[in-house]
Amino acid sequence: MSSDNSTVISRIRDGVVNELTNFLNESGRYLDGISPELAPVTASLKDFLLEGGKRFRPLFAYIGYLGAGGSENQSALKACASLELLQACALIHDDLMDGSDTRRNKPSIHKRFEALHRENSLQGNATQFGLSSAVLLGDLALIWSDAMLNQSYLGDDVHRKVFAVHDEMRIELMAGQYLDVFEQTQSTKSVSRALKIARYKSGKYSIERPLHFGAAMAHHEGRIESDYSAYGLPLGEAFQLRDDLLGVFGDPSLTGKPAGDDLREGKRTALIALASERGTKIQQRTLENLLGKPEISPHEISELQTLISETGADSEIEKMISSLTEQALGALQSPEITEQGKSLLTDLAVIATQRSK
Amino acid sequence: MSSDNSTVISRIRDGVVNELTNFLNESGRYLDGISPELAPVTASLKDFLLEGGKRFRPLFAYIGYLGAGGSENQSALKACASLELLQACALIHDDLMDGSDTRRNKPSIHKRFEALHRENSLQGNATQFGLSSAVLLGDLALIWSDAMLNQSYLGDDVHRKVFAVHDEMRIELMAGQYLDVFEQTQSTKSVSRALKIARYKSGKYSIERPLHFGAAMAHHEGRIESDYSAYGLPLGEAFQLRDDLLGVFGDPSLTGKPAGDDLREGKRTALIALASERGTKIQQRTLENLLGKPEISPHEISELQTLISETGADSEIEKMISSLTEQALGALQSPEITEQGKSLLTDLAVIATQRSK
Repeated sequence: MSSDNSTVISRIRDGVVNELTNFLNESGRYLDGISPELAPVTASLKDFLLEGGKRFRPLFAYIGYLGAGGSENQSALKACASLELLQACALIHDDLMDGSDTRRNKPSIHKRFEALHRENSLQGNATQFGLSSAVLLGDLALIWSDAMLNQSYLGDDVHRKVFAVHDEMRIELMAGQYLDVFEQTQSTKSVSRALKIARYKSGKYSIERPLHFGAAMAHHEGRIESDYSAYGLPLGEAFQLRDDLLGVFGDPSLTGKPAGDDLREGKRTALIALASERGTKIQQRTLENLLGKPEISPHEISELQTLISETGADSEIEKMISSLTEQALGALQSPEITEQGKSLLTDLAVIATQRSK
Repeated sequence: MSSDNSTVISRIRDGVVNELTNFLNESGRYLDGISPELAPVTASLKDFLLEGGKRFRPLFAYIGYLGAGGSENQSALKACASLELLQACALIHDDLMDGSDTRRNKPSIHKRFEALHRENSLQGNATQFGLSSAVLLGDLALIWSDAMLNQSYLGDDVHRKVFAVHDEMRIELMAGQYLDVFEQTQSTKSVSRALKIARYKSGKYSIERPLHFGAAMAHHEGRIESDYSAYGLPLGEAFQLRDDLLGVFGDPSLTGKPAGDDLREGKRTALIALASERGTKIQQRTLENLLGKPEISPHEISELQTLISETGADSEIEKMISSLTEQALGALQSPEITEQGKSLLTDLAVIATQRSK
């Protein structure tokens, strides 16, 4: 990566954190004015939002904005930063639905409030309190994301277009989430279904729509939306496939999740579907028996990791990631995208797909 | 109620249902385009939104709009109707957090998806599938409410003001919901804390903010916001106190909830706090033992109902409802509110506080 690009990307990330910090401080003061009992709500969301996170969605949105001819602008950065709050909603609710106890090496939100219940010897059921708190904190993060976007005023005609993209992105996200939950209830594994879910749940939502969001902010007329799709859709799939690999083979000290977390949760990813498709009858049966097993042991996790490698599914997924990334980079030839945009999006493609967390 | 007002109120309610029907049909087609597996999502939300519901928030918003000098307008009605989708999110998540199995005499959303899981012999845990579906359907309802509002375009300067009120309303709602959940974990009951929660969770959200939302749509400058608060805040408290009474003494065939539902859930309402405050030591102990008891029997529910009546808490709450309603009606003298608005808001005050469901 060029050192110029690296500086720009760091600066955007820092700017995003800065905007989030200001927004959360102000929003926290507002909650405090309602009742000091809301302090753990603010503290948990601040901790969740400000400590860690790769900031991909704001990065793609802001670079999508620059690539569409937008010039550096604080309001635009604030609008892009709001996407982190939307992502916080998705992650908080996701952890609750998956029963994931850990996020970035810390307890997930429902676990945090369960602990708060226990530590303070509160009345009633700690698990139920954790559940309720996670539902409400996710809802609040979703509403705050919208409030933050509404406050980052960019001009009326621009805002209407941005809202339309934003709504579409959020609807696709929730549709993808439901399809993902539903897929876990199916007895057959399908690579094509897994890829479709990945597309809605993560691909479109993480890359294509943020780019469109940025283009709308730049008020760009022309073919840039479809050019961004030609780059964003394959890259979004590659991004999700990398997530799938990390969910099985990732280093817990880097991912912040336990080893083989997706195996414990029984996630029906493209990687798993492919391993099943390529496996022998015996391997298929082992996969079926161990995947999502509630009290799966570390030994069984490592057995599954070996099995998946033996089917060759992981190297096949690596090949798909390379080929999808190449396809994405090919779409950057478009004359609609600024030179700076092309250069930054080239580097972002690598960051998004060759990561270890 | 004058027959004119009755006609206007019916027409607004019908208009709200009509706008919701159009929006849900279109949004359902969009989901269907993503995947036919989303059909139960659309069907459940349609059923939830279109069958029943008192439509109080759209009514207060639209009448707040008329009262602030707005003239009948389809876009304004659509904007007001969007509040029903926000309320759907609140109810779906509320039922999940409370473990309520019934809403309007039908299974609540998490129960519906649990049943779908069982009926189709899907893989995995039915309860977890119900939970995940309810989380996501609530999220989707929240996002759809925003999308519907964004589509009901009323002019740029108006929209910005409407958004600010809308964001504040939603933040207050979630803050109130959390305080309510937190209150259930406290060992002491407090009438003043219960009233504060009622104010945020329901009073401001159900009446005051919808009126402000309507005034913002009418682009009304002047004192009308504080006049609406002077009417809306006491009426909102009265509205919630009526809910508290119905939650304990309501007729299940009218409320659509089991008898004494709040007792089973252990809700710390103002009614319960007052009964505890006024009760003898023995009554306090009975209340403490039975309230929120997981397998509470119909006999124990009726025992609690009698106990609460014996403390006189219910008649005291009735008196508070009357006095708050009177206070609200007194605020309608304001010259800022149109004559039609005053007349409609007078009738709505009665409808909101003298209801049996």
